[in-house]
Parts: sequence; structure tokens; C-alpha cells
Amino acid sequence: MELKVKPFAYVSGQPTALLNPDTASNLGAIDGSRIRCEYAGVSRILFVVTSASMPKDRIGFDKIAAKALKVRPGKPVRASYYPPPPSASYIRKRLGGSQLNRDEIQAIVNDIVDGFLSEPEICAFVLGQFFRGMTMEEVEYLTHSIADTGQKIDFGRSVYDKHSIGGVPGNKVSLVIVPIVAAAGLLIPKTSSRAITSPSGTADTMSVLADVEFSPEEFKRISLRAGGSIVWGGRLGLAPADDILIRRCEHPLGIDPPSQMIASVLGKKIAVGAKYLVLDIPTGRGSKVERTEDARSLASSFMEIGRRVGIQVVCGITYGSQPVGHAVGPALEAKEALECLEGGGPISLREKSTALAGVLLEMAGVATSGDGQTIAKQILGSGRALRKMKEIIEAQGGNPNVRSQDVRIGSHKVSLLAPCDGYVSEVDNHSIGEVAKAAGAPSDIGAGILLHGKRGYVVKKGEPVLDIYGEHELKVSDAYALAQRLKPITVEGMLLHRIPDTV
Amino acid sequence: MELKVKPFAYVSGQPTALLNPDTASNLGAIDGSRIRCEYAGVSRILFVVTSASMPKDRIGFDKIAAKALKVRPGKPVRASYYPPPPSASYIRKRLGGSQLNRDEIQAIVNDIVDGFLSEPEICAFVLGQFFRGMTMEEVEYLTHSIADTGQKIDFGRSVYDKHSIGGVPGNKVSLVIVPIVAAAGLLIPKTSSRAITSPSGTADTMSVLADVEFSPEEFKRISLRAGGSIVWGGRLGLAPADDILIRRCEHPLGIDPPSQMIASVLGKKIAVGAKYLVLDIPTGRGSKVERTEDARSLASSFMEIGRRVGIQVVCGITYGSQPVGHAVGPALEAKEALECLEGGGPISLREKSTALAGVLLEMAGVATSGDGQTIAKQILGSGRALRKMKEIIEAQGGNPNVRSQDVRIGSHKVSLLAPCDGYVSEVDNHSIGEVAKAAGAPSDIGAGILLHGKRGYVVKKGEPVLDIYGEHELKVSDAYALAQRLKPITVEGMLLHRIPDTV
Repeated sequence: MELKVKPFAYVSGQPTALLNPDTASNLGAIDGSRIRCEYAGVSRILFVVTSASMPKDRIGFDKIAAKALKVRPGKPVRASYYPPPPSASYIRKRLGGSQLNRDEIQAIVNDIVDGFLSEPEICAFVLGQFFRGMTMEEVEYLTHSIADTGQKIDFGRSVYDKHSIGGVPGNKVSLVIVPIVAAAGLLIPKTSSRAITSPSGTADTMSVLADVEFSPEEFKRISLRAGGSIVWGGRLGLAPADDILIRRCEHPLGIDPPSQMIASVLGKKIAVGAKYLVLDIPTGRGSKVERTEDARSLASSFMEIGRRVGIQVVCGITYGSQPVGHAVGPALEAKEALECLEGGGPISLREKSTALAGVLLEMAGVATSGDGQTIAKQILGSGRALRKMKEIIEAQGGNPNVRSQDVRIGSHKVSLLAPCDGYVSEVDNHSIGEVAKAAGAPSDIGAGILLHGKRGYVVKKGEPVLDIYGEHELKVSDAYALAQRLKPITVEGMLLHRIPDTV
Repeated sequence: MELKVKPFAYVSGQPTALLNPDTASNLGAIDGSRIRCEYAGVSRILFVVTSASMPKDRIGFDKIAAKALKVRPGKPVRASYYPPPPSASYIRKRLGGSQLNRDEIQAIVNDIVDGFLSEPEICAFVLGQFFRGMTMEEVEYLTHSIADTGQKIDFGRSVYDKHSIGGVPGNKVSLVIVPIVAAAGLLIPKTSSRAITSPSGTADTMSVLADVEFSPEEFKRISLRAGGSIVWGGRLGLAPADDILIRRCEHPLGIDPPSQMIASVLGKKIAVGAKYLVLDIPTGRGSKVERTEDARSLASSFMEIGRRVGIQVVCGITYGSQPVGHAVGPALEAKEALECLEGGGPISLREKSTALAGVLLEMAGVATSGDGQTIAKQILGSGRALRKMKEIIEAQGGNPNVRSQDVRIGSHKVSLLAPCDGYVSEVDNHSIGEVAKAAGAPSDIGAGILLHGKRGYVVKKGEPVLDIYGEHELKVSDAYALAQRLKPITVEGMLLHRIPDTV
């Protein structure tokens, strides 16, 4: 069928052709079907969206499609029905209960990255894993496929890495671990994410102190120069399938099936050539993995797939029922990480960071078995980790002379006060995150929460137990109102108060 | 946040706001998030799509959204993050393994119909049913919810109905059953679908003889006047949730979970006030339900839910491994149905139609138990069914004097010849459907397939066993090429030939 091109401003995640429903029907297509469009010797497969307002002899292209076809308004384009690719039938086959082989999984991942699979197909792939799991073979193939569809970086020497499966607010440990490990002479080029649902991703926190957006070449140069780095993974093109699955399915549905999590994490590690990985699995009520036995099972799957793809994985099951340290939000967390490197900061941050860093030191043989944390604490206590962090900050274009007290935090502040003498009996991860986000985190980098104490902290009536910081007064008020509703901290079961109000 | 409106031509299935990714991030939104937009006292919830080509202070609306907000380009709109509706959390809850109550299911169906649920959420709802099933209580609630979210029609007297779960090409039995049942004095207002993946839906077939698109009021008037009707359900607004689920999930993924199928079918029957339903479940290799025990189990679920919602359901498990009758495609099937009403046509069509019609006659007490098919055959044989069909055709604006030989079929024809003496050992439903579609069905109404015989049919070498008809020579050639590849008919395991070619 020959159709004239009508301009069409929409830019979707996948290349799209807009058709009148009757025109689509004549092509044998409905919404979501694929058609092949041909113009001047170039052809592309596009997804159909129908609209009754589209004239019957016209076809609309989104920008991706129009650019690919090099076509302008009014030009005639040949369109024909295009059947679903083989990968779509592999996804259906898996819905039917079959296992997939290496080539089938590779085809699915390729087509996800190339935009040939529709949203329902992508969701079916992830939900199939959610409901039925995957065999170890399938996860192994998926891991390789995810690595192979993206950029790979060869650092030319042994790469050490650290990863957390997330789910706990205030988890700024990478900003302490990376300089300790790099100060020990190991190479630790750390890619990290920006917040999707949390009040600060590691990349958001690091961006307070230095640039985090680099090309793969820059990332390599910076990491080799400083021995370590903390950058945003989003511009590196590593494992692009993962971003698509998160955006199109996992985030909207709030799911993260273990098989997909393992393949995505290890796929990214393969892409940077990591051979040694310490994996942080925060566990406990209100974290991603609530029960210790589930954490153990996830750890053993990570190690098994690691073994199959050539990465030695050691997992740390850590306490995840309340925030790590006291600070939540980009600037507050960066400030607290610097305090820790300067020799201060909360104990929980120091302990967790040195424990995980110690594992890598032992894997590298820099520390003997059982001595890793001691050595990590020595590196931290001696100021070598702080000096290394300044090198990393400088290599990433930041100010190496920054001190924790220089970090600017939001100028608006509201405190929650203890309503009675007592102790903190509950700190709720989810509510802490929501309140910090209401205050403006992560896009307002100075916004967030500072806890005066966590579980077991003894307070007197009228003392502050939690401060909300923000860059805009209105947002801080909103966050306060939300805090009253969500009750992020409980003192012996009572609600908290606001300065200067007394309820 | 206040944003200026930028014109935006896209019309999506759901109300959409187009934002720069940074603007979205400042709102706390990503692709697929919801935002609330307010203009001149009107507010609407929209889904976010991000595009880097969008200026940061602008917001684009699709036509649905722009119309709802009554907003024009350049006007300032207030936008804020809007959390997922409760129904989204019910879908997540069900992913976690919980059962849903009546209110939760009603909320999900309402929000599907109102466009408040995203594609991943809709797919998760259907895939959750696919993987985990539903309890009888849940299916009952879902059935009522589907009926309640759409138009309802009260005919003021007992309504009889017939439905097939589909999956077999050439299943034109409704065009024979409806006039038999109506000729017996029962009211049978039959809504039917157009083809989604098949070469002809019942509505496509009927549209060869009469109009099929009517408003609910016209449908009621026509049905009461003639005692029966065969119309397209698409314009009646019955059970709109069903169409959305089919378009957005079931069709793209090729799935049709029993719980959703039962709720959709019976929800539509509630909407027309049907109290008696005969349900055709074609069973066998290459049909929707391959094993008889699965057909039995589906039948018993249909009857149980029918009992709960006040519809008496009798199921016919019919032979579904090859087409019904000999004709596939709108005009060819309409012609064959008329032949049957005129006293001719293939035996399989006559037997299946009278068997299913007989069930309704028994349910109504028009025939005594066990005598239904005999009475149905008498009505067919006496010409009363043909006269009734002419009344129905006339009531639906068609030519009541049409004879089977008047039905115009495609003028281009290619025959497949038997490559040897033998008998037909295989007729493949799927391949028959694909070849008929390649020939142009259903949009070219004269296109399709005519089988000379089905399984067991004895042929001599060089005799035609299957004719491909079409309105365009090129499509008939394409269909022939496809037939060579797919082998829709097997004669003792040999391939077939083309006139005048000899392979």
C-alpha cells in the first residue's frame, strides 16, 4: 500500500507509524502490529498506532522513524504488514512453559535493544521470569546477552567492583568503599545509577562533589589515572537492555525478578571486565529482600552465575531495615561520606563500608582471610582513603579540597521533635524515602533528611529526632505534612512534633 | 510546576503528556508515570512520555488530553506528580499472590476502561491470570465488573444466545443457528466480532449480506422486529474492558487466560440480558483447546460462573481440528451459509449448526430433551430458517432476495492439485487461516479458500483439492506461494501442485 507522509511530532520509545484504523486494517494490522515501510530504497520495521483523526491515505512517523527512513512530509511510502520477529515467538513459547536456548535468549535481548519488541512482549518476558523463574542456564545466557548488546570497556588490568541490590535509603557506602579499595592499589571503576524511585542514587550523591557523566573513553582514562571512580552508568552504553526493562516494565510494576536482577548486574560487570565483585544484599523488613533465607538463596544464585561467567562474587548480607548512616539525600549523603573519610561520621556507615571493602581486599590478597576489615579500617583511619577520594574527585573535575563542612545543604529546615521521653522504636525505609523526595530529593540536591538517631536512640521530650532539609520552603512544608501522615520515625509509638508548633 | 502548551499531533490509546526528561525528573516522573495537569479549573491525570526534543518549559498533549483540558497552544498549565491509583496497587498485590475482592476488581476494570492504567499494568493483570489463574469468586466479580462498565440493553423478554470461543476457520454456524432459533419463536440478538487474527469473523461474514454496524437502539429494534440479528459488537459499547484487554495484551501476546475469557464472554451476555447460552468449544489439535479434558474443565467453569451470574450455560464440545464446512473468508462463508439454509451445503456445517441450535430449543422447551437437533433440522429443512434469515437480512438493511449463487466471490482463483492418487490426511487450521489472509481476507471480502474435501476425502492425481480466491491477482499469487511453504492440506504426505504449473 502506498501512503503519503503526514508530519507527526511524537517521539516514542519505539519507532512508530500512525495510521487510520481502516488503513491499518487493510494492511492486516491493528495497534501494536508491526509494518514494514519503504522509501527510496530504505526500509524499516515500525509499530502501528491507530488514530481516527489520521486521513486514510496518510502515514505519520515519529522522529526516530522519520529519521531512519530519511523521509519528508508528502512523500509516498510503501507500507506492508510485517509479522512479529522470531524473538516474539520465543517469548510466547516461554509463556507456554518451555525453556529457552542461548540463541533464543540472544535474539530476545537483541530485539529489545533494537526496539523490535513491543511493550506487552517486553512485559511478558519479565513477568514470565517473575512467575516461573529461569534455569541457571537461561540466566547465564541472559547475562552474556545483556553484556554483549552494549559497550564493553577493557581496562587492561584486574578490575574490582562493588554493587548493592538497593532498597535502603542513605546507602552512600560506595563513596567510602571505592577510595579505600583504590588506596590499597586495586582498580575499582564504579558505575552507578541515578535515583529511579529512591531519594538519591550513588551517581546523584557523587554528582554533589564531582562530574559523573563521562564517555566510555573518559571513564577509562579517569579510572586508570585515579585507580578508582564513581560515575553515572547512563552515558556509558553498558547493558542498554537493562535500562529498557527497568523503564518499560520493572519500575512501572514494582517488580525485579531475581533472574533478571542477576543477569543485569553481572552483565554490567562483564561489560567493564570486572573479575572480582563484592555484592551488598541489604536484608530485613522494609528492604528489597525481607527474609534472610531469601537473601542466602539470592546470594548463592549470584555466586553460581558469577562462576559461570567468570566473575568471582562474594556476597555480604547486610542489615537493611533502616537507613545506612544518618543522612538521606544527595548533598547530605555526600557530606556524611566525607565526614566518614575525614575520620568521623556514624558508626553504621564506617562499619558497613569497611566490612565490604575488606572483602575485596581479601579477594585481591591485599589482606589475609579474616583481616580485610581491619586493613580497610587502617586505610580509612590513616587518611589514605580521604587522599584517594580527593584524587578521584579531581580526576572527575571536582574540587579536591572540598571538606565535609563545605558541602552546601538546603537552607530550609524543619525538625521533628520527640513527643515524650523514650527511645526510637522504628525507622521506616519507605516513609523516609517518600519524605525526602517530597522535600525535593534528588533533583534539589540540598534536600533530604538527617536522622538524629536510629533504632534504640534515647531521646528526651522536645528534642529533635529528625531534620527535613530542602531548597524550597513549600516543599519542606509538604514533606513535613507527609511525615505527619507517614510517621517515618516512631518514638515508643507516639507521633512527633514540629518546631515551633506543639500538637 | 507551570508549563506552556506545545501542540502535539499524537493520538494514543491513553491520555498523554509529552515532557522533556529533565522536566519530568523535576516533577518526580519518568516515562509511564502519571501527572495531574490543571488548566482553568479543569484537571486531568495523564501518562508521561519523555522526549529530549521537547523544550524544558513546555508540555505537549495528545488530542484526548488537550480536548479534556480545553487547552490551546501557549497557555500555561499547572503540572504535578500523581501517584498510581489504588487499582495499580491491587494489580501489584495480585502479582504478590493475594486474592482480590469485589471492590478491588471493580476498581481495576473501571480504571482500565477510563484509561487510568498503563500498558504494563494491564498486561500484568492479564498475565497474572495466565500464570496463576483466578478463583471462582474473582471470575464472578470480574464478569460483573466487565458487564457493569459498559452499555446494557434490556429487550424486555427472554434472550437466547450462542457463542463460540473461536479458533477454527470457516466457523459460519451463527448464520445458520440464529435463523433456526429465531424461526422457532425465540429471541436471539447475536453480537459478534470482526476478525482479529482470523480470516473472517462472524461480523465480517454477515457484512457480505447486510449492514452489521448499529447503535444499541437500532440493534434492539432490529432484533425485536426479526426475532434475531447478527451484528458487530464493536459499536454497541458492551463490555469495553474486553476490547482494551484484547488490543493491549491478549492479541499482542497470543494469550487468552480462561478466567478472562469466561468473564469477557459472560460479561457481554449479561449486558444483552441473555439468560440462556449455548457455548461452542471447538476442541482438538490446532484449535484453541487441544485436549478434551481441558475443554471439559473450561465448560464446567463456564457453567459454574454462568450459574453465579444468572445465565444458564450449556456447552457443546465440537470437533475443531479442521475448518467447519468447506469455505473460509467472508463472501465464501456467507455463500456457504446461504447454501445450507437453502437445503444444500456441506454436512459438517449442517450437523454442527443444528446440534447447537437444538440445545437452545431444548433449553427453551420448544423441543423436548434429546429432540432439539431433530426439530432444528425440521426448521432448516422446511425453509423456515431461510425465510427467517431473509427477514433478518432485510431488517439489517440487506437484500432479502439474495441467493447463494448471487454472492460475489473474488474473480482471481488458483487451485492446488493432488500430487498423486490418495486421500486428504491433514487439513491445518493455522495454515488455512494464514493462506486465506494472504489472499486478502477479511478486508477483501471476496478472498478466501474453498476446500474440495477435508480429512478422509479421496482424490485422484491432478484433481483440485483446494481453491484460493482473491480480488487481486498479486495477493492470490502471494497466497499460493505461502501455501507451498505452509502445506495447508496434505495428501498422503505429498505436496500439492498449481495449475498450470507442474512441480
